[in-house]
Amino acid sequence: MTRFVLVAGTTKTARIDGISAAGADPDLVAHTPSADAELIEYGHLVRAPALPVSPTGCPTPATVTRAVRELVGFETLVVDAGLAEPTGAPTVGVGAKPGRDVREAEPVPTAPGAWVAARELGRTLPDDELVIGETIPGGTTTALGVCRALGVGEASGTARATGDGDGGAVDLPVSSSLPENPLDLKREVVADAFEASDLAPGDAAYRPELAVRFLGDPVLAVVAGLTAGALASGTAVVLGGGTQMLAAAALVRHAGVADPLTVATTTYVAGDVGVDVDASAAALDCDLVVTDPGFGGRDDPLARYAAGEAKEGAGMGGALHLADRDGVLGRVGDGTLEVLERVSGSYGP
Amino acid sequence: MTRFVLVAGTTKTARIDGISAAGADPDLVAHTPSADAELIEYGHLVRAPALPVSPTGCPTPATVTRAVRELVGFETLVVDAGLAEPTGAPTVGVGAKPGRDVREAEPVPTAPGAWVAARELGRTLPDDELVIGETIPGGTTTALGVCRALGVGEASGTARATGDGDGGAVDLPVSSSLPENPLDLKREVVADAFEASDLAPGDAAYRPELAVRFLGDPVLAVVAGLTAGALASGTAVVLGGGTQMLAAAALVRHAGVADPLTVATTTYVAGDVGVDVDASAAALDCDLVVTDPGFGGRDDPLARYAAGEAKEGAGMGGALHLADRDGVLGRVGDGTLEVLERVSGSYGP
Repeated sequence: MTRFVLVAGTTKTARIDGISAAGADPDLVAHTPSADAELIEYGHLVRAPALPVSPTGCPTPATVTRAVRELVGFETLVVDAGLAEPTGAPTVGVGAKPGRDVREAEPVPTAPGAWVAARELGRTLPDDELVIGETIPGGTTTALGVCRALGVGEASGTARATGDGDGGAVDLPVSSSLPENPLDLKREVVADAFEASDLAPGDAAYRPELAVRFLGDPVLAVVAGLTAGALASGTAVVLGGGTQMLAAAALVRHAGVADPLTVATTTYVAGDVGVDVDASAAALDCDLVVTDPGFGGRDDPLARYAAGEAKEGAGMGGALHLADRDGVLGRVGDGTLEVLERVSGSYGP
Repeated sequence: MTRFVLVAGTTKTARIDGISAAGADPDLVAHTPSADAELIEYGHLVRAPALPVSPTGCPTPATVTRAVRELVGFETLVVDAGLAEPTGAPTVGVGAKPGRDVREAEPVPTAPGAWVAARELGRTLPDDELVIGETIPGGTTTALGVCRALGVGEASGTARATGDGDGGAVDLPVSSSLPENPLDLKREVVADAFEASDLAPGDAAYRPELAVRFLGDPVLAVVAGLTAGALASGTAVVLGGGTQMLAAAALVRHAGVADPLTVATTTYVAGDVGVDVDASAAALDCDLVVTDPGFGGRDDPLARYAAGEAKEGAGMGGALHLADRDGVLGRVGDGTLEVLERVSGSYGP
């Protein structure tokens, strides 16, 4: 049996101006993971105040994941990896607290403990396969920080040489929920994060708990722990997502886990300018599955995905992979629109 | 769509010697609700240490509810109504803490807040029907306390006269998970509880939050709140259980909620000596559904149910009602045995 696991958390890093599109206005961003969890669990909002949409009205990818769930019928589990706002979705805890701004000295003190508790949870879940998704606004920036701390995705040999964290060739495919990826800003934030910590790029190689504790966010710690535990007990794992799931895969590999691992993402991430997902997945010895949701020809809010917004999140790539495997991929677009209409009555900006 | 809601919590009242059969030894009793939640959610234990069985080896009714879930496929939600031990099942919180011993002055200070939060949750859940079950060792004793505080189930006019809580004609069908119902002990505990509080029997009539705060447990508060909220938003509610669900129904009626309400229980509760479930349900203006799981002719651990153990709990009566409605009642026994074998490898005392 397959279970879809949503790892949901927050980091104050998302409050940095211009970092994330996961919310119509900054006050709502911290509610996005709580709302995503409700959407996937219920197809409805329960305690969250609003449907998460980007500033231009692109609906959260959780609506896509929910639509797939209604078509395929998989079981779900939401893991609280540092939620900051109430959710009506049932969650299981692993001791994670919301992450602080990654530019603080120790932004994720709960990371090592949450990793261990998540690993134990992953080990004991009875399923044959976990498809793991994430929801954490600002998460691609902390993913970049983690990969640089591990020395992953840097031009070979330059990691330590570049020292202060800017100027190195960054090969990690850092995608964005925004149409214009604020990559310079992300690099600057990561450079500041290295300055605030005692780590230099590459210092956390093979010590993944340090990378996530000083440069990361609680969601990455929990995804990596769950994955390591599940693989150790013979459960297959599909990481559903782009940049952040590649960072989670890097953490898992740096924890010494060599088992087969799949990353499933959307064509929107894979097609992102300057992003070479194939090469990154291959470098981490991960199988890559890229699924096209086919939203390109639509004249409804889903067309924004084809225009380069959102791209991924809330396990969308993993859910689409399940839809494809079940032969219902062609029905996901209309299903998502149904979810949107149900949740919002009306939709669009 | 129908959702099965398990309201899971604890009360120190269960530690009174001889009160509950919900655990093979006293140290495991506090784990029972956490384990029940995992069994219904996963068909497996995750964080809980052992399959809850009675001292003589009767397996928890949560295995029956899980078996029905596998046959019928309903969605589930576990509400944390004061769990005292870790669970790997995802839960939604309503601010409830474990209940203290009902013989303390204020055993459930979180009851009024949890009631309100549960009512709001019940109001916002998107389902057409909720089937609500409970798991709280010691719960029939606090159910008796709540009903006496409300003045329900007493011989008319004697509630205040009897004062100290024993000697009054108790018409509330107080069932038990033990084959020999320790009813005298329960009455004595309730009498002590009244002495410790500022309430006399009947004093909490039409003030249900007082009854549950001073004589009850957190599960009753949450079941009543969920029910009131769901009914207010047009969601049908089936209370799956015996004594405790009649107490919850009494709380709901005393909160001024007059909507149709169904109590679904097993033949084991309905057939309990000295228990008139029909009359109690009728007095509370509830429809009563009684389902026979048909465990009578078996020569496996389920035969203990037919011998008068466990009888109810973890929504068993509600789940059996769903199984009957779906035409799969005849497969519940073998399905339960499958669950038992999966969980424990071996079973029986």
